[in-house]
Amino acid sequence: MQLDDFKNVAANYRVIFFDAFGVLKNYEGLLPGIENTFSWLQSTGKEFYILTNDASRSPQELAESYHRGGAYAITPDRIISSGMLAREYLDLKVNHGTVAYLGTEGSAHYLETTDLKTLPISEVDLSDVSDINALVLLDDEGFDWNTDLNKTVNLLRRRNIPVIVANTDETYPVSKTRIAIAIGAVAEMIETIVGKQFIRFGKPDAQLFMFAYERLEHLTLPGNDSFKPISKRDVLMVGDTLRTDILGGNKFGLDTVLVLTGNTQPQDAEIQIRSTGIIPTYVCESVVISD
Amino acid sequence: MQLDDFKNVAANYRVIFFDAFGVLKNYEGLLPGIENTFSWLQSTGKEFYILTNDASRSPQELAESYHRGGAYAITPDRIISSGMLAREYLDLKVNHGTVAYLGTEGSAHYLETTDLKTLPISEVDLSDVSDINALVLLDDEGFDWNTDLNKTVNLLRRRNIPVIVANTDETYPVSKTRIAIAIGAVAEMIETIVGKQFIRFGKPDAQLFMFAYERLEHLTLPGNDSFKPISKRDVLMVGDTLRTDILGGNKFGLDTVLVLTGNTQPQDAEIQIRSTGIIPTYVCESVVISD
Amino acid sequence: MQLDDFKNVAANYRVIFFDAFGVLKNYEGLLPGIENTFSWLQSTGKEFYILTNDASRSPQELAESYHRGGAYAITPDRIISSGMLAREYLDLKVNHGTVAYLGTEGSAHYLETTDLKTLPISEVDLSDVSDINALVLLDDEGFDWNTDLNKTVNLLRRRNIPVIVANTDETYPVSKTRIAIAIGAVAEMIETIVGKQFIRFGKPDAQLFMFAYERLEHLTLPGNDSFKPISKRDVLMVGDTLRTDILGGNKFGLDTVLVLTGNTQPQDAEIQIRSTGIIPTYVCESVVISD
Amino acid sequence: MQLDDFKNVAANYRVIFFDAFGVLKNYEGLLPGIENTFSWLQSTGKEFYILTNDASRSPQELAESYHRGGAYAITPDRIISSGMLAREYLDLKVNHGTVAYLGTEGSAHYLETTDLKTLPISEVDLSDVSDINALVLLDDEGFDWNTDLNKTVNLLRRRNIPVIVANTDETYPVSKTRIAIAIGAVAEMIETIVGKQFIRFGKPDAQLFMFAYERLEHLTLPGNDSFKPISKRDVLMVGDTLRTDILGGNKFGLDTVLVLTGNTQPQDAEIQIRSTGIIPTYVCESVVISD
Repeated sequence: MQLDDFKNVAANYRVIFFDAFGVLKNYEGLLPGIENTFSWLQSTGKEFYILTNDASRSPQELAESYHRGGAYAITPDRIISSGMLAREYLDLKVNHGTVAYLGTEGSAHYLETTDLKTLPISEVDLSDVSDINALVLLDDEGFDWNTDLNKTVNLLRRRNIPVIVANTDETYPVSKTRIAIAIGAVAEMIETIVGKQFIRFGKPDAQLFMFAYERLEHLTLPGNDSFKPISKRDVLMVGDTLRTDILGGNKFGLDTVLVLTGNTQPQDAEIQIRSTGIIPTYVCESVVISD
Repeated sequence: MQLDDFKNVAANYRVIFFDAFGVLKNYEGLLPGIENTFSWLQSTGKEFYILTNDASRSPQELAESYHRGGAYAITPDRIISSGMLAREYLDLKVNHGTVAYLGTEGSAHYLETTDLKTLPISEVDLSDVSDINALVLLDDEGFDWNTDLNKTVNLLRRRNIPVIVANTDETYPVSKTRIAIAIGAVAEMIETIVGKQFIRFGKPDAQLFMFAYERLEHLTLPGNDSFKPISKRDVLMVGDTLRTDILGGNKFGLDTVLVLTGNTQPQDAEIQIRSTGIIPTYVCESVVISD
Repeated sequence: MQLDDFKNVAANYRVIFFDAFGVLKNYEGLLPGIENTFSWLQSTGKEFYILTNDASRSPQELAESYHRGGAYAITPDRIISSGMLAREYLDLKVNHGTVAYLGTEGSAHYLETTDLKTLPISEVDLSDVSDINALVLLDDEGFDWNTDLNKTVNLLRRRNIPVIVANTDETYPVSKTRIAIAIGAVAEMIETIVGKQFIRFGKPDAQLFMFAYERLEHLTLPGNDSFKPISKRDVLMVGDTLRTDILGGNKFGLDTVLVLTGNTQPQDAEIQIRSTGIIPTYVCESVVISD
Repeated sequence: MQLDDFKNVAANYRVIFFDAFGVLKNYEGLLPGIENTFSWLQSTGKEFYILTNDASRSPQELAESYHRGGAYAITPDRIISSGMLAREYLDLKVNHGTVAYLGTEGSAHYLETTDLKTLPISEVDLSDVSDINALVLLDDEGFDWNTDLNKTVNLLRRRNIPVIVANTDETYPVSKTRIAIAIGAVAEMIETIVGKQFIRFGKPDAQLFMFAYERLEHLTLPGNDSFKPISKRDVLMVGDTLRTDILGGNKFGLDTVLVLTGNTQPQDAEIQIRSTGIIPTYVCESVVISD
């Protein structure tokens, strides 16, 4: 398997979409040297966005966590999270009443900007659910799994309401050797039990890519091609997970880079590409650029 | 849809296999009048067995719960539980070391009669798992879902060991209007996350039926046909759930009765039979026989 | 279940997206009186698009079939087919070589406009496949199922190439009482066999909606609101199938109408909405407007 | 990964269950030298049975094919095929009328010994199906896939009848480099389309193992242990496929041997065992015994 140099690859594109976890940071924090990558992007006038399935924190909170690590280039407006799609859905489709949620209070910020009242599932009274018009699964923390998942199942037996899953990941790493179950896997279990079709936002779904891509339309970009409008050919998607980042990027029509700093181990990359049939345009060791 | 009288139907068979929950009892206890059914079975010399996916309690404990309700005819040797298949598997296939489990202490009685040490998942030390040679999922109670399910996932990433699911049910009723998530649904979530194939015991799988059927081989049964050996034509399976009791009974070659006192509501029975293609030989309102 | 009048509902929107089969036409041809609907749309200055998973014919051919039925308002530029997404994908992501396909010669028109050579799977020589860089599943006709599906499986074992499914439907009606297997169901079978992840275009996927929605951006629409840019609130999606039209429209953020002239029978609509949890904004008997 | 010698392993068991394809034979015929294995089994007084998911031919025809290759020890009574389970099901559960089938005339022999009329799906008249009381999927040959699979779907929409799948394999090898789609994969496609639950016979399901195991009960076996009744500890299951042979053997409580002459390639065995969690007791290169 041929490994390409990230800087050489990225030089050919005007916009870079990055996945966050496993690409820019891991369970220990930002990847050492990642600020060099953003310095280079800014010095060459390239645009970039972070596309993340992490709906546990708002773009502001996420940006602050990058700033604490020294990556000042990542401003809130450059972060596109699946939680933002959940909010857009609620704005457009659920006009009134209460939205129940599974997740932390922090994750519920995505919901609080709509006209809806928000209620953690732990506070739902199953004997009086007529005002609950939607349920959103945001994060695996902030509730008691046994009590509140059973409550969720019973809520969905009483109310035929839309259920939105704002993070489709099944697991996430918590240390070099351990992973944790993410809300996406919990959502699949509940969906099977109640037999209903949930609405999922997040990679590989096209909607997250579209949300980011629409922001590019009014940009003026430097470089020789600056007067041409942005097209999908100008955008490179970078991720560590074949089934979300690479599949989603490919399907949206973007060139893709698989990096080996996260979910896909160097020794497994080739066999996984062959066995899944999900083929990145390039494979790079890391997005970190050495000076 | 034609409803048949249970006594008329059962009169044509020499042996009756009953599912427990939804057939003999519900969330409130034994069905009122169920003792009449067992009196009639005994007076007519019919054999009967209870085939249950409930591995949360031993046959002794289960029998005692029937006795407390007045159904003295149900002795421990007439109860065939999926937990017994889990124990047989461990006896035959896992010879030494420790078996970790998810479930209550009561459910772990199934495991304690083997030569293996048993360890609740809460007490597993993930940094020292080399002695753990199997994992058994017994019951949805007796552990902390968030902490211990994450621990389970990480155990299975470290040890390539057989995983036995001793209760394949996805949910069970806890009141007239509420259900709870059963360990079978949790097992599916973990199986998907770790990508491995678990070993399931319990209806509709043939092995539980076989386990009961083998007990019939040495029986001498009264009646005109008593000198003929028992065949599958002599056995009637009675259950409230199409996908476990009826599918499993049909596949094993038994005639089947769907009763409407549990998972299948009277108003839904016909549409469910048509939509699933799982066709009971008879449909009866209840197994309770009025005097 | 409350039935709404389509004209009353549609009056509140500026743009209507229609599914084709089961909404505008059925196995017998165009719905009688459908031309009234388009006359009314034109007289009130409403925009409309046809969003179809039918990749068996080009927009030109599809438009001609409407014209033969008297619906002259449906011009090729108003037809958005999943085949157009397949073509865009090939343009962006597969730059050279040959694309093999399953489908009729007519369906292959979608592929022929790219720089790629096209080859029906029947003409693929399995001993020389190094030039084949993509496979597209377009239609269930135009090939021998036994021979060519086996050939497809073996091609995908030799070449790790992207596979595009341009019609995700599982079946389609061919008469009042009969259905036929569509290429979407065949695609799922082959995907399971080869264990790879195919790329699917077509409802409920957001990309088909996005493709249509992007066409609205430069429109000037009449009416009181004509100077406001089009938003998702101005668009109504109309379909006969919950799992494609309604789920997809809802998720994209559009209001939705379920009509009862196709896949969803009047007597089943309520139970299907409840059992799937896919909830249309409105239910109408038909889009046909009586004078 | 440790490779064991088959003769050394088998010496510790009284009965050997063999899978056929990939173990005793491949697309070119019997494995060279396989007769030595059967000579040794007979000289040491070991019992053996062939457990096969191949319902395309009767035990007589299958035995003849072994005889033509020189393996005279394999008599029809030693062959247990999933077709025999299909026949037992029809005998017990479908008493009258017609059974339609997908498969060759040869495969239909399994059905012809019952009291039922048999009818290939190609001869079914969809306008008169009231006499059809079951459908059996036997083999991937003997019918036109396009025409007859569509006919099958429409039959199952008209008649709510049991559907039996007598071969659960998804593919089978036809040459060193090519595979073909087996009826098991076709069955899954149709099951998904019609939304009904089919009845599957064949490994890994316990019923095929049980069928073979019941034949052992009246045996008198030579050796030191000859006066003890046969137990599951005396039986060794040998197969080339983890998901059928090994999973099924393990679950039934047998020790298992994975051989590397069929579906599982030597270079893939270890990774497949780890990734599936299906763990054979032993891995052997082949069952062929060199003199």
